[in-house]
Amino acid sequence: MDLTPREELDRRIAALQERMGTLSWDAVLIMLRADLFYFAGTAQNGVLVIPAEGDPILLIQKSVTRARQESPLDHIHPMRSISRFGETLSGIREMRFGTVGLEMDVVPAAVYLRLARQYPDTTWVDASVPVRELRMVKSSHEILRMRNAAAQLREMFDRVPEFLGVGIRELDVSVRLEAMLRKLGHQGTIRMHKWNSDSHYGPVSSGPTALYPHAFDGPVGTQGLYAAVPQGAGIRKIRPNEPVMIDFVSGYGGYHIDETRIYSLGPVAPELLEAHEFALTILRRIEDRLTPGALCSDIYEEIATDVNDHPLAPYFMGHGDNRVRFLGHGVGLELDELPVIAPRFEIALQPGMTIAVEPKVFLPDLGGVGVENTYLITEGGFEKLTTNPEEITIC
Amino acid sequence: MDLTPREELDRRIAALQERMGTLSWDAVLIMLRADLFYFAGTAQNGVLVIPAEGDPILLIQKSVTRARQESPLDHIHPMRSISRFGETLSGIREMRFGTVGLEMDVVPAAVYLRLARQYPDTTWVDASVPVRELRMVKSSHEILRMRNAAAQLREMFDRVPEFLGVGIRELDVSVRLEAMLRKLGHQGTIRMHKWNSDSHYGPVSSGPTALYPHAFDGPVGTQGLYAAVPQGAGIRKIRPNEPVMIDFVSGYGGYHIDETRIYSLGPVAPELLEAHEFALTILRRIEDRLTPGALCSDIYEEIATDVNDHPLAPYFMGHGDNRVRFLGHGVGLELDELPVIAPRFEIALQPGMTIAVEPKVFLPDLGGVGVENTYLITEGGFEKLTTNPEEITIC
Repeated sequence: MDLTPREELDRRIAALQERMGTLSWDAVLIMLRADLFYFAGTAQNGVLVIPAEGDPILLIQKSVTRARQESPLDHIHPMRSISRFGETLSGIREMRFGTVGLEMDVVPAAVYLRLARQYPDTTWVDASVPVRELRMVKSSHEILRMRNAAAQLREMFDRVPEFLGVGIRELDVSVRLEAMLRKLGHQGTIRMHKWNSDSHYGPVSSGPTALYPHAFDGPVGTQGLYAAVPQGAGIRKIRPNEPVMIDFVSGYGGYHIDETRIYSLGPVAPELLEAHEFALTILRRIEDRLTPGALCSDIYEEIATDVNDHPLAPYFMGHGDNRVRFLGHGVGLELDELPVIAPRFEIALQPGMTIAVEPKVFLPDLGGVGVENTYLITEGGFEKLTTNPEEITIC
Repeated sequence: MDLTPREELDRRIAALQERMGTLSWDAVLIMLRADLFYFAGTAQNGVLVIPAEGDPILLIQKSVTRARQESPLDHIHPMRSISRFGETLSGIREMRFGTVGLEMDVVPAAVYLRLARQYPDTTWVDASVPVRELRMVKSSHEILRMRNAAAQLREMFDRVPEFLGVGIRELDVSVRLEAMLRKLGHQGTIRMHKWNSDSHYGPVSSGPTALYPHAFDGPVGTQGLYAAVPQGAGIRKIRPNEPVMIDFVSGYGGYHIDETRIYSLGPVAPELLEAHEFALTILRRIEDRLTPGALCSDIYEEIATDVNDHPLAPYFMGHGDNRVRFLGHGVGLELDELPVIAPRFEIALQPGMTIAVEPKVFLPDLGGVGVENTYLITEGGFEKLTTNPEEITIC
């Protein structure tokens, strides 16, 4: 098992405590699996209590044994249920609970109300933004895991031409890719921060499928197999001379990488080629701005101004309901991390951020083209973690 | 696409409205994907407003186009965000909002608070139990989909002996099974009702792995690949003469089936065989009680009394932290549905309920044995939907 070193956790907890000091919060309660793993090194069920000062206390519902194996933290105790949280905690340490942070955008209302009843005088605040802002900047320990996740996709995308063929279903392509990733150590599930989101590796969208409307907050159209689970590959058979857009997510040690490449069986229509070149031009312009200090909102506005003058503007970043107002998003323990390259995200790029950038163009009746890379922001600018060829691969 | 007929939705909505009448609720807001699909026939993002009387209104964030394609409901409108919910709804219809139900055990605190600010005089109540109780009893439309999901597992389990071999990793077995299910039309993701749960098809646990502690609320031990994502197969290599416990979940049209079977390369130790026979005996005793009118809590207590006298009692239903206090659980659009065959669940069985029953025994150092079947409760008793042989399959 891949364990997180104590120094790594201490640094993260200290950084949150510093932020809590500024905000005058007394404690933050961490419950979301991705955040538990980030601060405690274990994703077992429970609550990590981080006080403004002093050691954190990890209260575990299941499994205490495993939490103790995985987490190097000193104070790990069993807890029967959230209804016993206050009682369990006060049996361990007296703690000031004047203002307490909770991951309010994901913790269910019933859990929040159950906690609020136990602490009638506490002011509850949303800790999600501070936590997500901390998690934006990856340590070298995390970057190593993201490199391993990138290697999964590098091999997967390289091998697409081995089996892509006329008449096979999108689903069959997806199954091959899913199996390849899993054999390479993909963890199976994809974590989304946004409540009520589904994601299963990502879409394989052939021709017009890339314009099919769906619930996911991304530009790539996808039909899926059922109305009940409207995501991922459908059963459309792949035809010659159309773009097959593969937008896949890998997973190693909890960390994701997001990458999109286009394949076709024989050359695609010239309009699609032109649109793909346009997307690559935009990608280069975004890359020129990927440098510490650049504001995400500025990058978005500058690129939007460039794009607006172009005849392909109406087809950029999604068709119809799928149109999105972002160019990229952070990626790490969750697929939808901060920062977002979008209006109003006045967040300055910093070394250690990992951002998926995805300029894409969708032409009615023809399909989707473009590229998505995940970048690591460095002192000097960026390093591209997804290094497969960016041109359309003609098989 | 597999669409839900209007009559089906009308019946479900009318049943909830009847319940709302009894409870004197003015409306229920449905947001969880599984529930949206159940009541509206679409899993696009949004809120379904079900008033105590009259037609429901579906407010959709993304995608309105697709929601209108999939849902036969009459009133489907776009909504920009939850913060605009009240404004959007009042522009469509004036509605009494004295007491309103919300899926409080899953809807995030931030969403609840955002709604509460828009309706300062509303009393908010938890609608999850009434909704989950409605969903317990499946219609023939739903049962057909569950039969299709059962067929996926029937073929999958039949084919395990084709490739199970000494020295292959649990992960490699899992990859084969995942790919088989997907090719047969598995939707990819598994839906859990419980917040913060991970599930990816299910564990493949060889020998002592079946006793490995984990976060999931089930008896089958599993290591997984990483501390960050502690579920599913690990990298342990399969050895001769040990039980390989495969506890997998299929998915067709949103509906799940849950089944467990045991395989071994050569015969297992006599203690394990005996423990497996014990689990089968318990299964038969539970089956004897699967009949309309039987109370879930009674079934649990009667079986617990039987088991307590047996020398295998300490090994029944999970080892160490994995020990659970249930014998079975409802399954349908989510894996963890009602009813639960457990203490205090005073729910009477009814025709149309679909319940996974999983008596299992875990012997230290040796591994896990037992069976899990999904049953349909019928007028006369039950029908077993998972029909693979229940003995240990020796490959």
